[in-house]
Amino acid sequence: KINKDRLWDALMEMAKVGPGVAGGNNRQTLTDADAEGRALFQTWCEAAGCTMGVDTMGNMFATRAGTDPDALPVYMGSHLDTQPTGGKYDGVLGVLGGLEVMRTLQDLDVKTKHPIVLTNWTNEEGTRFAPAMLSSGVFAGLHTQDWAYSRLDAEGKSFGDELQRIGWVGDEQVGARKMHAMFELHIEQGPILEAEGRDIGVVTHGQGLWWLEVTVTGKDAHTGSTPMDMRVNAGLGMARMTEAVHRIAMAQQPDAVGAVGHCDVYPNSRNVIPGKVVFTVDFRSPDLEKLTAMRVAFEEQAAEIAQDLGLGLSIEPSGHFDPVTFDDTCVSAVRSAAETLGYSHMDIISGAGHDACWINRVAPTAMIMCPCVDGLSHNEAEEISPDWAAAGTDVLLHAVLETAQV
Amino acid sequence: KINKDRLWDALMEMAKVGPGVAGGNNRQTLTDADAEGRALFQTWCEAAGCTMGVDTMGNMFATRAGTDPDALPVYMGSHLDTQPTGGKYDGVLGVLGGLEVMRTLQDLDVKTKHPIVLTNWTNEEGTRFAPAMLSSGVFAGLHTQDWAYSRLDAEGKSFGDELQRIGWVGDEQVGARKMHAMFELHIEQGPILEAEGRDIGVVTHGQGLWWLEVTVTGKDAHTGSTPMDMRVNAGLGMARMTEAVHRIAMAQQPDAVGAVGHCDVYPNSRNVIPGKVVFTVDFRSPDLEKLTAMRVAFEEQAAEIAQDLGLGLSIEPSGHFDPVTFDDTCVSAVRSAAETLGYSHMDIISGAGHDACWINRVAPTAMIMCPCVDGLSHNEAEEISPDWAAAGTDVLLHAVLETAQV
Ligand SMILES: NC(=O)NCCC(=O)O
Ligand SMILES: NC(=O)NCCC(=O)O
Repeated sequence: KINKDRLWDALMEMAKVGPGVAGGNNRQTLTDADAEGRALFQTWCEAAGCTMGVDTMGNMFATRAGTDPDALPVYMGSHLDTQPTGGKYDGVLGVLGGLEVMRTLQDLDVKTKHPIVLTNWTNEEGTRFAPAMLSSGVFAGLHTQDWAYSRLDAEGKSFGDELQRIGWVGDEQVGARKMHAMFELHIEQGPILEAEGRDIGVVTHGQGLWWLEVTVTGKDAHTGSTPMDMRVNAGLGMARMTEAVHRIAMAQQPDAVGAVGHCDVYPNSRNVIPGKVVFTVDFRSPDLEKLTAMRVAFEEQAAEIAQDLGLGLSIEPSGHFDPVTFDDTCVSAVRSAAETLGYSHMDIISGAGHDACWINRVAPTAMIMCPCVDGLSHNEAEEISPDWAAAGTDVLLHAVLETAQV
Repeated sequence: KINKDRLWDALMEMAKVGPGVAGGNNRQTLTDADAEGRALFQTWCEAAGCTMGVDTMGNMFATRAGTDPDALPVYMGSHLDTQPTGGKYDGVLGVLGGLEVMRTLQDLDVKTKHPIVLTNWTNEEGTRFAPAMLSSGVFAGLHTQDWAYSRLDAEGKSFGDELQRIGWVGDEQVGARKMHAMFELHIEQGPILEAEGRDIGVVTHGQGLWWLEVTVTGKDAHTGSTPMDMRVNAGLGMARMTEAVHRIAMAQQPDAVGAVGHCDVYPNSRNVIPGKVVFTVDFRSPDLEKLTAMRVAFEEQAAEIAQDLGLGLSIEPSGHFDPVTFDDTCVSAVRSAAETLGYSHMDIISGAGHDACWINRVAPTAMIMCPCVDGLSHNEAEEISPDWAAAGTDVLLHAVLETAQV
């Protein structure tokens, strides 16, 4: 078993980098805080006997050598970037859990046939630069690096420029590494494991996702002196489309969700009818048919709403993945590790997207989940217990060791 | 009659101060651009033979002496501040039309019994610091100066600090001046005069207004892994309340309007269910009963929506005035000036709020309106014709001369 206290200390130490305003973190990707977190992580990895490689997307790879020079490495890892008002564990547990595995192997001087590599994937959250899981997506060949470099944040800064600015453009070609297998430990970010009283979620599938960026165009006009029938109110259009997103997701229950997370109103003045609103839509389902149906229904209903109100409308996809089925052998390795260690467990579908969802396209992959309090995530109040963190990391250790062959 | 070309040149010259991004202006109150516009206006007034006084709210008063030392002055004026994406005429025409009156009186060396004073009221727009007509409101005793100084903009800067910063805290006690009468020339900001083909609106009444600031509180949570029935979605609450504002105003047709102009979503991230939304509501009607009914209906419906969705709700008034009836004698002076000059005219109700609405509480007051293209205002594309501007200013000249006694 791993060292529970050392794992928790590392989590608390990393949480000091890019603190939030309410006990969580704001360590958004490619900020100065991200750079600081990366440097700390590198120091820890090197002290644990690993050598660090960085690719041209800033993905970090800490390698512990194996005994067979021809054996492909077994990967583990997740991400250190956070939401603007994020928690201390989302992503971080998967990286620092991996670090604790490395430290435990060093303590016990374990030798494995396959090398073991711990990864920190760049820009998993996707809140600053859409889409999410951008760099694991480039690694897996879903996006080109040029396209990824050209992604802009809300201030118009590009991913490529910001990666350069914080000094984390590596020299390895992205995606050149081959993997024997990959395991990602992550908090559930949902309520199921806690409600069912299980220590471990054996992740068999992941939900698919559509992210849309919607621009509604009306006409700025005076809120007082413009008669109701002369208004072209982009804010009212946004309101109706936000309700449509909810209605469409409710019509596909269970196994479907939908919401509007980001919304900017222009010119955003008390006495001006909004002339433009830009907002984002997030639809997800483990069922490809439902996922597609939601997107289609939204496009139809948004067009009707826009027509009714005389509004201009543009809908651009800004992120997409199909539902994911993880690798049987890797999933079994997770399940039997939980069994062996005596942790209660259940099969579960990931509600969130994860780097593992993309890596699953190029290597056998599985995920391990641990509960989080009230299912709360993407909130500074996100919480887990040291026992949950330790159980997930124990399972990670054993699944990795079984796959890397002691 | 006034000098049409000189009036238009002044309008175009002032429009160079604080230019917008699309041909209009962004000369918001208490910005550096506002300070620059004030200095230019002062230079022009002094060249026209006036002496400038400034009160502790930054209200500017350019005085042309009268022949009777005991006669109270006749006031005219409006405001030089603009919306963030405002037009070149909203407010500015009333100030620079007044300047053109001063220049014409100087050219013709006219003597009046009553002094004539031209005013630039501070923060009429209310977009940066709510409520609108803040400084004419303090002048008329509606608000205390301390309260006005403590109003905050979206960045948390106070009115008092910003007035100090731009160097326009005057030494006159606000509200100490007594007025014989006051006339405000303004563009209509609505479609009626243009549709009816009239040069002049004789403003008999003004709509009443309720501004509300609404805070809806939910719970930040992950858009993917949070089941629909566990969400406390402040964005969905905002959407339903925005629709309610529209529905409530439509139920009071005609003679009622309602819209949401300003809306901030928190944390405003693609994959976070909004935990908080702050937005503003603007209801108006010339009919006090309808105005009150709309506010009451909104409070009831918003509470129901919040309860349905499990949301916290706070509704704070951030601006209010009852419908206004302007002074008979002043209104007659406007109407007979239009008659005498041979301009087509009609009685009209002001859809927007104006400094004249507050001054009407402490002095006999009336307003003159001129048409604007497509009724468009609070939009950089706001447009009027030089002829419309000149006709309005001619009527202002004659109404003021009749009242100030040549
Ligand atoms: N795990 C996680 O929150 N990833 C961010 C991408 C998503 O929204 O699913
Ligand atoms: N005239 C004008 O636009 N005033 C601003 C206050 C209001 O919204 O009515």
